[in-house]
Amino acid sequence: MSLLEPYFFDGSRKCKMDELPTNSKKDKVKKEEILEKFQKNLLLLDELQNTFYSYKKEGMILVLQAMDAGGKDSLIRHVASGMNPQGVHVSCLKKPSEEELSHDYLWRIHQNIPRRGEITIFNRSYYEDIVTAEVHHLMTTYPMADRVIGGKEASFIKKRIKQVNNYETYLYENSYRVVKVFLHVSKEKQKERLLERLDIPEKNWKFEAGDLEEREIFDVYMKKYEKTISETASKECPWYVLPADQKWYTRYLLTEILIDQFKKVDAKYPTLSKEEEGMLGVYRDRLMN
Amino acid sequence: MSLLEPYFFDGSRKCKMDELPTNSKKDKVKKEEILEKFQKNLLLLDELQNTFYSYKKEGMILVLQAMDAGGKDSLIRHVASGMNPQGVHVSCLKKPSEEELSHDYLWRIHQNIPRRGEITIFNRSYYEDIVTAEVHHLMTTYPMADRVIGGKEASFIKKRIKQVNNYETYLYENSYRVVKVFLHVSKEKQKERLLERLDIPEKNWKFEAGDLEEREIFDVYMKKYEKTISETASKECPWYVLPADQKWYTRYLLTEILIDQFKKVDAKYPTLSKEEEGMLGVYRDRLMN
Repeated sequence: MSLLEPYFFDGSRKCKMDELPTNSKKDKVKKEEILEKFQKNLLLLDELQNTFYSYKKEGMILVLQAMDAGGKDSLIRHVASGMNPQGVHVSCLKKPSEEELSHDYLWRIHQNIPRRGEITIFNRSYYEDIVTAEVHHLMTTYPMADRVIGGKEASFIKKRIKQVNNYETYLYENSYRVVKVFLHVSKEKQKERLLERLDIPEKNWKFEAGDLEEREIFDVYMKKYEKTISETASKECPWYVLPADQKWYTRYLLTEILIDQFKKVDAKYPTLSKEEEGMLGVYRDRLMN
Repeated sequence: MSLLEPYFFDGSRKCKMDELPTNSKKDKVKKEEILEKFQKNLLLLDELQNTFYSYKKEGMILVLQAMDAGGKDSLIRHVASGMNPQGVHVSCLKKPSEEELSHDYLWRIHQNIPRRGEITIFNRSYYEDIVTAEVHHLMTTYPMADRVIGGKEASFIKKRIKQVNNYETYLYENSYRVVKVFLHVSKEKQKERLLERLDIPEKNWKFEAGDLEEREIFDVYMKKYEKTISETASKECPWYVLPADQKWYTRYLLTEILIDQFKKVDAKYPTLSKEEEGMLGVYRDRLMN
Protein backbone atom coordinates (compact mmCIF):
# COMPACT_ATOMS: atom_id res chain seq x y z
CA MET A 1 0.00 0.00 0.00
CA SER A 2 1.26 3.44 -0.89
CA LEU A 3 1.86 5.83 2.00
CA LEU A 4 -0.40 8.26 0.15
CA GLU A 5 -3.50 6.10 0.16
CA PRO A 6 -5.04 7.18 3.48
CA TYR A 7 -4.70 10.81 2.39
CA PHE A 8 -6.16 10.41 -1.07
CA PHE A 9 -9.69 11.53 -1.99
CA ASP A 10 -11.20 10.86 -5.39
CA GLY A 11 -14.86 11.28 -4.55
CA SER A 12 -15.41 7.65 -3.59
CA ARG A 13 -15.43 8.41 0.18
CA LYS A 14 -16.01 11.41 2.40
CA CYS A 15 -13.26 13.41 3.98
CA LYS A 16 -13.40 13.37 7.78
CA MET A 17 -10.79 15.61 9.36
CA ASP A 18 -11.11 14.04 12.84
CA GLU A 19 -10.08 10.68 11.45
CA LEU A 20 -7.12 12.02 9.51
CA PRO A 21 -3.74 12.35 11.25
CA THR A 22 -1.81 15.63 11.39
CA ASN A 23 1.50 13.82 11.94
CA SER A 24 3.41 10.71 10.85
CA LYS A 25 2.86 8.53 13.94
CA LYS A 26 0.26 6.32 12.34
CA ASP A 27 2.51 5.67 9.35
CA LYS A 28 5.36 4.47 11.60
CA VAL A 29 8.05 6.01 9.40
CA LYS A 30 11.58 6.89 10.41
CA LYS A 31 12.61 10.48 9.85
CA GLU A 32 16.13 9.62 8.57
CA GLU A 33 14.71 7.21 6.01
CA ILE A 34 12.11 9.71 4.84
CA LEU A 35 14.74 12.46 4.51
CA GLU A 36 16.84 10.14 2.37
CA LYS A 37 13.89 9.20 0.21
CA PHE A 38 12.99 12.88 -0.13
CA GLN A 39 16.43 13.67 -1.55
CA LYS A 40 16.08 10.85 -4.07
CA ASN A 41 12.62 12.07 -5.02
CA LEU A 42 13.94 15.57 -5.67
CA LEU A 43 16.43 14.17 -8.17
CA LEU A 44 13.71 12.13 -9.83
CA LEU A 45 11.36 15.14 -9.93
CA ASP A 46 13.98 17.23 -11.68
CA GLU A 47 14.32 14.57 -14.36
CA LEU A 48 10.57 14.02 -14.75
CA GLN A 49 9.88 17.73 -15.00
CA ASN A 50 12.54 18.15 -17.66
CA THR A 51 10.89 15.52 -19.85
CA PHE A 52 7.49 17.01 -19.11
CA TYR A 53 8.77 20.43 -20.20
CA SER A 54 10.03 19.09 -23.52
CA TYR A 55 6.87 17.08 -24.14
CA LYS A 56 4.50 20.08 -23.88
CA LYS A 57 1.31 18.06 -24.28
CA GLU A 58 -0.02 18.44 -20.76
CA GLY A 59 0.08 21.21 -18.19
CA MET A 60 0.04 20.77 -14.43
CA ILE A 61 -1.86 22.63 -11.75
CA LEU A 62 -1.14 22.12 -8.08
CA VAL A 63 -3.55 23.76 -5.67
CA LEU A 64 -2.35 24.25 -2.09
CA GLN A 65 -4.77 25.14 0.68
CA ALA A 66 -4.18 25.31 4.43
CA MET A 67 -4.98 27.18 7.60
CA ASP A 68 -2.54 29.94 8.61
CA ALA A 69 0.89 28.54 9.51
CA GLY A 70 -0.02 25.32 7.72
CA GLY A 71 3.37 25.46 6.02
CA LYS A 72 2.49 26.28 2.40
CA ASP A 73 5.29 28.76 1.80
CA SER A 74 8.14 26.63 3.04
CA LEU A 75 6.69 23.55 1.37
CA ILE A 76 6.71 25.32 -1.99
CA ARG A 77 10.24 26.58 -1.42
CA HIS A 78 11.57 23.12 -0.59
CA VAL A 79 9.76 21.07 -3.21
CA ALA A 80 9.65 23.48 -6.16
CA SER A 81 13.34 24.29 -5.75
CA GLY A 82 14.10 20.82 -7.04
CA MET A 83 12.67 21.71 -10.44
CA ASN A 84 13.72 24.10 -13.21
CA PRO A 85 12.08 27.45 -12.41
CA GLN A 86 11.64 28.09 -16.14
CA GLY A 87 8.74 25.67 -16.18
CA VAL A 88 7.39 26.23 -12.66
CA HIS A 89 5.27 29.21 -11.63
CA VAL A 90 3.94 30.06 -8.21
CA SER A 91 0.74 32.04 -8.06
CA CYS A 92 0.25 33.52 -4.61
CA LEU A 93 -3.33 34.64 -4.16
CA LYS A 94 -3.96 37.52 -1.81
CA LYS A 95 -7.21 39.21 -0.85
CA PRO A 96 -8.78 40.16 -4.19
CA SER A 97 -8.10 43.70 -5.46
CA GLU A 98 -10.88 46.01 -6.62
CA GLU A 99 -10.03 45.12 -10.22
CA GLU A 100 -10.27 41.42 -9.40
CA LEU A 101 -13.53 41.82 -7.50
CA SER A 102 -15.07 43.59 -10.50
CA HIS A 103 -14.59 40.35 -12.48
CA ASP A 104 -15.78 36.79 -11.95
CA TYR A 105 -13.67 34.95 -9.34
CA LEU A 106 -11.95 32.61 -11.81
CA TRP A 107 -10.73 35.52 -13.95
CA ARG A 108 -7.53 36.01 -11.97
CA ILE A 109 -7.02 32.27 -11.75
CA HIS A 110 -7.37 31.60 -15.46
CA GLN A 111 -4.66 34.14 -16.28
CA ASN A 112 -2.25 31.98 -14.30
CA ILE A 113 -3.05 28.66 -15.91
CA PRO A 114 0.33 27.53 -17.30
CA ARG A 115 1.31 26.69 -20.85
CA ARG A 116 1.25 22.98 -21.49
CA GLY A 117 4.63 21.64 -20.44
CA GLU A 118 4.64 23.93 -17.41
CA ILE A 119 3.37 23.88 -13.84
CA THR A 120 1.52 26.43 -11.77
CA ILE A 121 1.44 26.04 -8.01
CA PHE A 122 -1.45 27.97 -6.54
CA ASN A 123 -0.57 29.16 -3.04
CA ARG A 124 -4.23 29.59 -2.05
CA SER A 125 -6.77 29.41 -4.83
CA TYR A 126 -10.42 29.65 -5.88
CA TYR A 127 -11.15 27.39 -2.92
CA GLU A 128 -10.93 30.55 -0.82
CA ASP A 129 -13.94 31.75 -2.83
CA ILE A 130 -15.86 28.79 -1.45
CA VAL A 131 -14.49 28.14 2.04
CA THR A 132 -13.59 31.65 3.24
CA ALA A 133 -16.57 33.11 1.40
CA GLU A 134 -18.89 30.81 3.36
CA VAL A 135 -17.15 31.13 6.73
CA HIS A 136 -17.24 34.93 6.57
CA HIS A 137 -20.55 35.24 4.71
CA LEU A 138 -18.97 37.33 1.97
CA MET A 139 -21.76 36.72 -0.56
CA THR A 140 -23.70 39.91 0.03
CA THR A 141 -20.54 42.04 -0.14
CA TYR A 142 -19.88 41.10 -3.77
CA PRO A 143 -20.65 43.73 -6.43
CA MET A 144 -23.17 41.55 -8.22
CA ALA A 145 -26.82 41.68 -9.20
CA ASP A 146 -29.59 40.63 -6.84
CA ARG A 147 -30.40 37.63 -9.02
CA VAL A 148 -26.94 36.29 -7.99
CA ILE A 149 -26.48 37.39 -4.39
CA GLY A 150 -30.08 37.92 -3.33
CA GLY A 151 -30.85 34.27 -2.57
CA LYS A 152 -29.78 31.80 0.09
CA GLU A 153 -26.10 31.51 0.94
CA ALA A 154 -26.25 27.72 0.83
CA SER A 155 -27.39 27.65 -2.78
CA PHE A 156 -24.83 30.29 -3.75
CA ILE A 157 -22.05 28.11 -2.33
CA LYS A 158 -23.55 25.01 -3.92
CA LYS A 159 -23.37 26.74 -7.29
CA ARG A 160 -19.73 27.63 -6.72
CA ILE A 161 -18.97 24.00 -5.93
CA LYS A 162 -20.57 23.01 -9.22
CA GLN A 163 -18.70 25.77 -11.08
CA VAL A 164 -15.36 24.69 -9.65
CA ASN A 165 -16.04 21.06 -10.52
CA ASN A 166 -16.91 22.09 -14.07
CA TYR A 167 -13.83 24.28 -14.30
CA GLU A 168 -11.45 21.56 -13.18
CA THR A 169 -13.07 19.03 -15.49
CA TYR A 170 -12.68 21.53 -18.32
CA LEU A 171 -8.98 21.87 -17.56
CA TYR A 172 -8.54 18.11 -17.38
CA GLU A 173 -10.34 17.71 -20.70
CA ASN A 174 -8.02 20.31 -22.20
CA SER A 175 -4.87 18.42 -21.33
CA TYR A 176 -4.13 19.64 -17.83
CA ARG A 177 -3.58 17.64 -14.64
CA VAL A 178 -5.19 19.20 -11.60
CA VAL A 179 -4.22 18.01 -8.14
CA LYS A 180 -5.26 19.61 -4.90
CA VAL A 181 -3.54 19.39 -1.54
CA PHE A 182 -4.79 20.43 1.87
CA LEU A 183 -2.16 20.76 4.59
CA HIS A 184 -3.71 19.34 7.71
CA VAL A 185 -2.06 20.99 10.67
CA SER A 186 -3.17 20.53 14.29
CA LYS A 187 -4.38 23.45 16.36
CA GLU A 188 -1.47 22.89 18.78
CA LYS A 189 1.13 23.00 16.04
CA GLN A 190 -0.48 26.12 14.60
CA LYS A 191 -0.17 27.80 18.02
CA GLU A 192 3.50 26.81 18.22
CA ARG A 193 4.24 28.23 14.76
CA LEU A 194 2.31 31.44 15.38
CA LEU A 195 4.24 31.90 18.66
CA GLU A 196 7.49 31.55 16.71
CA ARG A 197 6.34 34.39 14.48
CA LEU A 198 5.95 36.55 17.58
CA ASP A 199 9.15 35.44 19.32
CA ILE A 200 11.68 35.15 16.51
CA PRO A 201 12.57 38.56 15.02
CA GLU A 202 13.24 37.08 11.55
CA LYS A 203 9.73 35.68 11.54
CA ASN A 204 7.90 38.74 12.87
CA TRP A 205 7.02 39.90 9.33
CA LYS A 206 4.90 36.81 8.85
CA PHE A 207 2.64 37.51 11.80
CA GLU A 208 -0.75 39.00 11.18
CA ALA A 209 -3.19 39.85 13.94
CA GLY A 210 -6.03 38.58 11.75
CA ASP A 211 -4.58 35.05 12.02
CA LEU A 212 -5.67 34.96 15.66
CA GLU A 213 -9.26 35.69 14.72
CA GLU A 214 -9.18 32.95 12.12
CA ARG A 215 -7.72 30.62 14.73
CA GLU A 216 -10.74 31.16 16.95
CA ILE A 217 -12.93 29.58 14.29
CA PHE A 218 -10.44 26.84 13.40
CA ASP A 219 -13.09 24.15 13.83
CA VAL A 220 -15.59 25.98 11.66
CA TYR A 221 -12.97 26.07 8.90
CA MET A 222 -12.26 22.36 9.32
CA LYS A 223 -15.95 21.54 8.82
CA LYS A 224 -16.14 23.68 5.68
CA TYR A 225 -12.95 22.19 4.24
CA GLU A 226 -14.20 18.71 4.97
CA LYS A 227 -17.41 19.38 3.06
CA THR A 228 -15.71 21.23 0.19
CA ILE A 229 -13.05 18.55 -0.25
CA SER A 230 -15.66 15.79 -0.26
CA GLU A 231 -17.69 17.62 -2.90
CA THR A 232 -14.84 18.56 -5.23
CA ALA A 233 -12.72 15.43 -5.15
CA SER A 234 -12.89 13.39 -8.33
CA LYS A 235 -10.95 10.64 -10.01
CA GLU A 236 -9.55 13.10 -12.54
CA CYS A 237 -8.90 15.96 -10.11
CA PRO A 238 -8.28 14.41 -6.68
CA TRP A 239 -7.56 15.93 -3.31
CA TYR A 240 -4.89 14.90 -0.81
CA VAL A 241 -5.23 15.84 2.85
CA LEU A 242 -1.67 15.62 4.13
CA PRO A 243 -0.47 15.51 7.74
CA ALA A 244 1.32 18.84 8.15
CA ASP A 245 2.69 18.99 11.69
CA GLN A 246 6.10 17.70 10.60
CA LYS A 247 7.37 19.61 7.61
CA TRP A 248 9.88 16.91 6.59
CA TYR A 249 7.06 14.43 6.22
CA THR A 250 4.69 16.73 4.31
CA ARG A 251 7.47 17.59 1.87
CA TYR A 252 8.19 13.98 1.20
CA LEU A 253 4.51 13.17 0.62
CA LEU A 254 4.17 16.07 -1.80
CA THR A 255 7.09 14.81 -3.88
CA GLU A 256 5.33 11.44 -4.03
CA ILE A 257 2.16 13.13 -5.29
CA LEU A 258 4.02 15.06 -7.98
CA ILE A 259 5.93 11.99 -9.12
CA ASP A 260 2.65 10.14 -9.36
CA GLN A 261 1.16 12.94 -11.50
CA PHE A 262 4.20 13.06 -13.78
CA LYS A 263 4.02 9.31 -14.25
CA LYS A 264 0.39 9.61 -15.28
CA VAL A 265 1.39 12.11 -17.95
CA ASP A 266 4.02 9.66 -19.15
CA ALA A 267 5.92 12.37 -21.02
CA LYS A 268 8.59 11.51 -23.57
CA TYR A 269 11.28 13.64 -25.17
CA PRO A 270 10.04 14.59 -28.64
CA THR A 271 11.45 12.34 -31.35
CA LEU A 272 12.55 13.55 -34.76
CA SER A 273 10.97 12.53 -38.03
CA LYS A 274 13.10 10.49 -40.46
CA GLU A 275 13.64 13.66 -42.48
CA GLU A 276 14.67 15.76 -39.49
CA GLU A 277 16.98 12.98 -38.35
CA GLY A 278 18.65 12.99 -41.75
CA MET A 279 19.23 16.72 -41.44
CA LEU A 280 21.27 16.30 -38.25
CA GLY A 281 24.26 15.20 -40.35
CA VAL A 282 23.89 18.24 -42.59
CA TYR A 283 23.80 20.57 -39.59
CA ARG A 284 26.82 18.81 -38.11
CA ASP A 285 28.76 19.46 -41.33
CA ARG A 286 27.77 23.14 -41.31
CA LEU A 287 28.91 23.47 -37.72
CA MET A 288 32.27 21.82 -38.41
CA ASN A 289 33.12 23.90 -41.49
CA MET B 1 -44.87 40.52 -31.65
CA SER B 2 -41.33 41.80 -31.50
CA LEU B 3 -39.41 41.89 -34.77
CA LEU B 4 -36.72 39.87 -32.98
CA GLU B 5 -38.86 36.86 -32.20
CA PRO B 6 -38.29 34.81 -35.36
CA TYR B 7 -34.53 35.22 -34.90
CA PHE B 8 -34.41 34.31 -31.24
CA PHE B 9 -33.16 30.94 -29.96
CA ASP B 10 -33.29 29.97 -26.30
CA GLY B 11 -33.00 26.23 -26.65
CA SER B 12 -36.73 25.61 -26.95
CA ARG B 13 -36.56 25.01 -30.74
CA LYS B 14 -33.94 24.02 -33.27
CA CYS B 15 -32.20 26.47 -35.55
CA LYS B 16 -32.82 25.76 -39.22
CA MET B 17 -30.86 28.04 -41.49
CA ASP B 18 -32.96 27.23 -44.59
CA GLU B 19 -36.05 28.53 -42.90
CA LEU B 20 -34.43 31.73 -41.66
CA PRO B 21 -34.37 34.79 -43.92
CA THR B 22 -31.16 36.61 -44.84
CA ASN B 23 -33.04 39.84 -45.61
CA SER B 24 -35.94 41.96 -44.36
CA LYS B 25 -38.57 41.01 -46.97
CA LYS B 26 -40.52 38.72 -44.68
CA ASP B 27 -40.71 41.41 -42.00
CA LYS B 28 -42.23 43.89 -44.46
CA VAL B 29 -40.37 46.85 -42.98
CA LYS B 30 -39.67 50.19 -44.63
CA LYS B 31 -36.02 51.22 -44.78
CA GLU B 32 -36.68 54.89 -43.94
CA GLU B 33 -38.66 53.93 -40.86
CA ILE B 34 -36.01 51.51 -39.71
CA LEU B 35 -33.26 54.10 -40.20
CA GLU B 36 -35.22 56.52 -38.09
CA LYS B 37 -35.82 53.96 -35.37
CA PHE B 38 -32.14 53.04 -35.46
CA GLN B 39 -31.13 56.64 -34.70
CA LYS B 40 -33.55 56.74 -31.78
CA ASN B 41 -32.20 53.43 -30.51
CA LEU B 42 -28.63 54.75 -30.60
CA LEU B 43 -29.62 57.63 -28.31
CA LEU B 44 -31.39 55.24 -25.97
CA LEU B 45 -28.41 52.86 -25.97
CA ASP B 46 -26.07 55.66 -24.98
CA GLU B 47 -28.28 56.46 -22.03
CA LEU B 48 -28.76 52.84 -20.99
CA GLN B 49 -25.07 52.09 -21.19
CA ASN B 50 -24.24 55.11 -19.07
CA THR B 51 -26.51 53.89 -16.27
CA PHE B 52 -25.15 50.36 -16.72
CA TYR B 53 -21.61 51.72 -16.36
CA SER B 54 -22.42 53.50 -13.12
CA TYR B 55 -24.32 50.51 -11.72
CA LYS B 56 -21.37 48.06 -12.06
CA LYS B 57 -23.31 45.03 -10.86
CA GLU B 58 -23.47 43.16 -14.16
CA GLY B 59 -21.14 42.82 -17.11
CA MET B 60 -22.14 42.22 -20.72
CA ILE B 61 -20.71 39.89 -23.32
CA LEU B 62 -21.79 40.08 -26.94
CA VAL B 63 -20.52 37.29 -29.18
CA LEU B 64 -20.58 37.93 -32.93
CA GLN B 65 -20.13 35.09 -35.39
CA ALA B 66 -20.53 35.12 -39.17
CA MET B 67 -19.18 33.81 -42.44
CA ASP B 68 -16.61 36.01 -44.20
CA ALA B 69 -18.13 39.30 -45.39
CA GLY B 70 -21.02 38.73 -43.02
CA GLY B 71 -20.62 42.34 -41.92
CA LYS B 72 -19.26 41.98 -38.37
CA ASP B 73 -16.72 44.80 -38.57
CA SER B 74 -19.03 47.48 -39.91
CA LEU B 75 -21.81 46.35 -37.58
CA ILE B 76 -19.56 46.85 -34.56
CA ARG B 77 -18.40 50.22 -35.87
CA HIS B 78 -21.96 51.48 -36.34
CA VAL B 79 -23.56 50.13 -33.20
CA ALA B 80 -20.73 50.41 -30.68
CA SER B 81 -20.00 53.99 -31.77
CA GLY B 82 -23.24 55.00 -30.08
CA MET B 83 -21.83 54.08 -26.69
CA ASN B 84 -19.06 55.49 -24.50
CA PRO B 85 -15.85 53.67 -25.55
CA GLN B 86 -14.64 53.79 -21.93
CA GLY B 87 -17.03 50.99 -21.08
CA VAL B 88 -17.01 49.10 -24.39
CA HIS B 89 -14.22 46.79 -25.52
CA VAL B 90 -13.91 44.95 -28.80
CA SER B 91 -11.97 41.71 -28.76
CA CYS B 92 -11.04 40.67 -32.26
CA LEU B 93 -10.01 37.04 -32.32
CA LYS B 94 -7.49 36.00 -34.95
CA LYS B 95 -5.98 32.63 -35.67
CA PRO B 96 -4.52 31.52 -32.31
CA SER B 97 -0.84 32.31 -31.69
CA GLU B 98 1.62 29.68 -30.49
CA GLU B 99 1.30 31.09 -26.98
CA GLU B 100 -2.49 30.83 -27.17
CA LEU B 101 -2.38 27.30 -28.58
CA SER B 102 -0.17 26.19 -25.69
CA HIS B 103 -3.07 27.04 -23.35
CA ASP B 104 -6.67 25.86 -23.16
CA TYR B 105 -8.88 27.59 -25.74
CA LEU B 106 -10.82 29.71 -23.23
CA TRP B 107 -7.62 31.18 -21.76
CA ARG B 108 -7.43 34.04 -24.27
CA ILE B 109 -11.18 34.60 -23.99
CA HIS B 110 -11.27 34.81 -20.22
CA GLN B 111 -8.64 37.57 -20.21
CA ASN B 112 -11.08 39.70 -22.19
CA ILE B 113 -14.11 39.21 -19.99
CA PRO B 114 -15.01 42.79 -18.97
CA ARG B 115 -15.31 44.30 -15.54
CA ARG B 116 -18.88 44.43 -14.33
CA GLY B 117 -20.37 47.64 -15.68
CA GLU B 118 -18.57 47.15 -18.98
CA ILE B 119 -19.16 45.36 -22.27
CA THR B 120 -16.95 43.16 -24.40
CA ILE B 121 -17.93 42.54 -28.00
CA PHE B 122 -16.22 39.40 -29.29
CA ASN B 123 -15.59 39.71 -33.02
CA ARG B 124 -15.30 35.95 -33.50
CA SER B 125 -15.06 33.85 -30.36
CA TYR B 126 -14.67 30.41 -28.82
CA TYR B 127 -17.34 29.29 -31.25
CA GLU B 128 -14.53 29.12 -33.82
CA ASP B 129 -13.04 26.43 -31.56
CA ILE B 130 -16.16 24.40 -32.17
CA VAL B 131 -17.34 25.22 -35.69
CA THR B 132 -14.07 25.85 -37.54
CA ALA B 133 -12.34 23.15 -35.50
CA GLU B 134 -14.90 20.62 -36.71
CA VAL B 135 -15.09 21.81 -40.33
CA HIS B 136 -11.31 21.67 -40.72
CA HIS B 137 -10.73 18.67 -38.46
CA LEU B 138 -8.25 20.60 -36.33
CA MET B 139 -8.46 18.25 -33.36
CA THR B 140 -5.38 16.16 -34.12
CA THR B 141 -3.27 19.26 -34.75
CA TYR B 142 -3.64 20.47 -31.15
CA PRO B 143 -0.64 20.06 -28.84
CA MET B 144 -2.53 17.88 -26.38
CA ALA B 145 -2.25 14.41 -24.88
CA ASP B 146 -3.65 11.35 -26.60
CA ARG B 147 -6.27 10.95 -23.90
CA VAL B 148 -7.74 14.24 -25.23
CA ILE B 149 -7.20 14.13 -28.99
CA GLY B 150 -6.86 10.40 -29.56
CA GLY B 151 -10.57 9.61 -29.64
CA LYS B 152 -13.42 10.34 -32.02
CA GLU B 153 -13.83 13.84 -33.37
CA ALA B 154 -17.56 13.80 -32.67
CA SER B 155 -17.08 13.20 -28.95
CA PHE B 156 -14.32 15.82 -28.80
CA ILE B 157 -16.70 18.41 -30.29
CA LYS B 158 -19.51 17.25 -28.03
CA LYS B 159 -17.29 17.88 -25.01
CA ARG B 160 -16.51 21.38 -26.25
CA ILE B 161 -20.23 22.09 -26.60
CA LYS B 162 -20.69 21.02 -22.98
CA GLN B 163 -17.69 23.08 -21.88
CA VAL B 164 -18.98 26.19 -23.64
CA ASN B 165 -22.42 25.74 -22.12
CA ASN B 166 -20.87 25.39 -18.67
CA TYR B 167 -18.68 28.41 -19.26
CA GLU B 168 -21.54 30.66 -20.31
CA THR B 169 -23.68 29.46 -17.42
CA TYR B 170 -20.79 30.21 -15.09
CA LEU B 171 -20.57 33.75 -16.46
CA TYR B 172 -24.32 34.24 -16.13
CA GLU B 173 -24.20 32.98 -12.55
CA ASN B 174 -21.41 35.43 -11.82
CA SER B 175 -23.41 38.46 -12.87
CA TYR B 176 -22.73 38.63 -16.59
CA ARG B 177 -25.18 38.77 -19.48
CA VAL B 178 -24.11 36.66 -22.44
CA VAL B 179 -25.83 37.13 -25.78
CA LYS B 180 -24.73 35.57 -29.05
CA VAL B 181 -25.47 36.78 -32.55
CA PHE B 182 -24.96 34.99 -35.85
CA LEU B 183 -25.05 37.19 -38.95
CA HIS B 184 -26.92 35.21 -41.52
CA VAL B 185 -25.76 36.35 -44.93
CA SER B 186 -26.77 34.72 -48.23
CA LYS B 187 -24.20 33.15 -50.50
CA GLU B 188 -25.13 35.66 -53.22
CA LYS B 189 -24.62 38.66 -50.97
CA GLN B 190 -21.31 37.21 -49.79
CA LYS B 191 -20.18 36.96 -53.43
CA GLU B 192 -21.18 40.56 -54.04
CA ARG B 193 -19.26 41.80 -51.01
CA LEU B 194 -16.17 39.73 -51.81
CA LEU B 195 -16.24 41.12 -55.37
CA GLU B 196 -16.29 44.63 -53.92
CA ARG B 197 -13.14 43.79 -51.99
CA LEU B 198 -11.49 42.89 -55.30
CA ASP B 199 -12.87 45.81 -57.31
CA ILE B 200 -12.73 48.75 -54.91
CA PRO B 201 -9.13 49.77 -54.14
CA GLU B 202 -10.04 51.00 -50.63
CA LYS B 203 -11.42 47.58 -49.87
CA ASN B 204 -8.59 45.49 -51.34
CA TRP B 205 -6.90 45.14 -47.93
CA LYS B 206 -9.87 43.19 -46.64
CA PHE B 207 -9.64 40.49 -49.29
CA GLU B 208 -8.04 37.19 -48.37
CA ALA B 209 -7.62 34.35 -50.84
CA GLY B 210 -8.54 31.91 -48.07
CA ASP B 211 -12.05 33.37 -48.00
CA LEU B 212 -12.71 31.73 -51.38
CA GLU B 213 -11.83 28.32 -50.03
CA GLU B 214 -14.14 28.84 -47.07
CA ARG B 215 -16.85 29.95 -49.49
CA GLU B 216 -16.67 26.62 -51.27
CA ILE B 217 -17.81 24.89 -48.11
CA PHE B 218 -20.37 27.53 -47.20
CA ASP B 219 -23.10 24.92 -46.80
CA VAL B 220 -20.96 22.73 -44.58
CA TYR B 221 -20.46 25.72 -42.31
CA MET B 222 -24.19 26.44 -42.27
CA LYS B 223 -24.91 22.91 -41.08
CA LYS B 224 -22.31 23.14 -38.32
CA TYR B 225 -23.58 26.54 -37.19
CA GLU B 226 -27.13 25.27 -37.17
CA LYS B 227 -26.16 22.38 -34.91
CA THR B 228 -23.91 24.44 -32.66
CA ILE B 229 -26.48 27.20 -32.21
CA SER B 230 -29.19 24.68 -31.38
CA GLU B 231 -26.98 23.02 -28.78
CA THR B 232 -25.70 26.18 -27.10
CA ALA B 233 -28.82 28.33 -27.03
CA SER B 234 -30.34 28.69 -23.57
CA LYS B 235 -32.82 30.91 -21.81
CA GLU B 236 -30.00 32.63 -19.92
CA CYS B 237 -27.54 32.85 -22.82
CA PRO B 238 -29.60 32.98 -26.03
CA TRP B 239 -28.60 33.14 -29.68
CA TYR B 240 -30.01 35.42 -32.37
CA VAL B 241 -29.64 34.51 -36.04
CA LEU B 242 -30.06 37.86 -37.79
CA PRO B 243 -30.73 38.49 -41.49
CA ALA B 244 -27.50 40.13 -42.67
CA ASP B 245 -27.90 40.93 -46.35
CA GLN B 246 -29.01 44.51 -45.59
CA LYS B 247 -26.67 46.17 -43.17
CA TRP B 248 -29.18 48.85 -42.16
CA TYR B 249 -31.57 46.17 -40.98
CA THR B 250 -29.00 44.08 -39.11
CA ARG B 251 -27.77 47.18 -37.30
CA TYR B 252 -31.26 48.07 -36.19
CA LEU B 253 -31.95 44.54 -34.94
CA LEU B 254 -28.71 44.50 -32.97
CA THR B 255 -29.64 47.74 -31.20
CA GLU B 256 -32.94 46.09 -30.27
CA ILE B 257 -31.08 43.11 -28.81
CA LEU B 258 -28.77 45.30 -26.76
CA ILE B 259 -31.63 47.45 -25.48
CA ASP B 260 -33.41 44.27 -24.47
CA GLN B 261 -30.33 43.06 -22.55
CA PHE B 262 -29.87 46.40 -20.82
CA LYS B 263 -33.50 46.40 -19.77
CA LYS B 264 -33.04 42.96 -18.24
CA VAL B 265 -30.16 44.28 -16.18
CA ASP B 266 -32.39 47.13 -15.02
CA ALA B 267 -29.44 49.23 -13.90
CA LYS B 268 -29.90 52.26 -11.68
CA TYR B 269 -27.56 55.12 -10.85
CA PRO B 270 -26.09 54.41 -7.42
CA THR B 271 -27.90 56.26 -4.67
CA LEU B 272 -26.18 57.86 -1.72
CA SER B 273 -26.66 56.87 1.88
CA LYS B 274 -28.28 59.44 4.20
CA GLU B 275 -24.82 60.21 5.58
CA GLU B 276 -23.23 60.69 2.17
CA GLU B 277 -26.16 62.85 1.13
CA GLY B 278 -25.63 65.05 4.15
CA MET B 279 -21.98 65.48 3.16
CA LEU B 280 -22.91 67.01 -0.21
CA GLY B 281 -23.67 70.32 1.51
CA VAL B 282 -20.30 70.25 3.29
CA TYR B 283 -18.50 69.60 0.00
CA ARG B 284 -20.47 72.41 -1.64
CA ASP B 285 -19.33 74.83 1.06
CA ARG B 286 -15.69 73.76 0.64
CA LEU B 287 -15.93 74.29 -3.11
CA MET B 288 -17.44 77.75 -2.75
CA ASN B 289 -14.89 79.03 -0.19
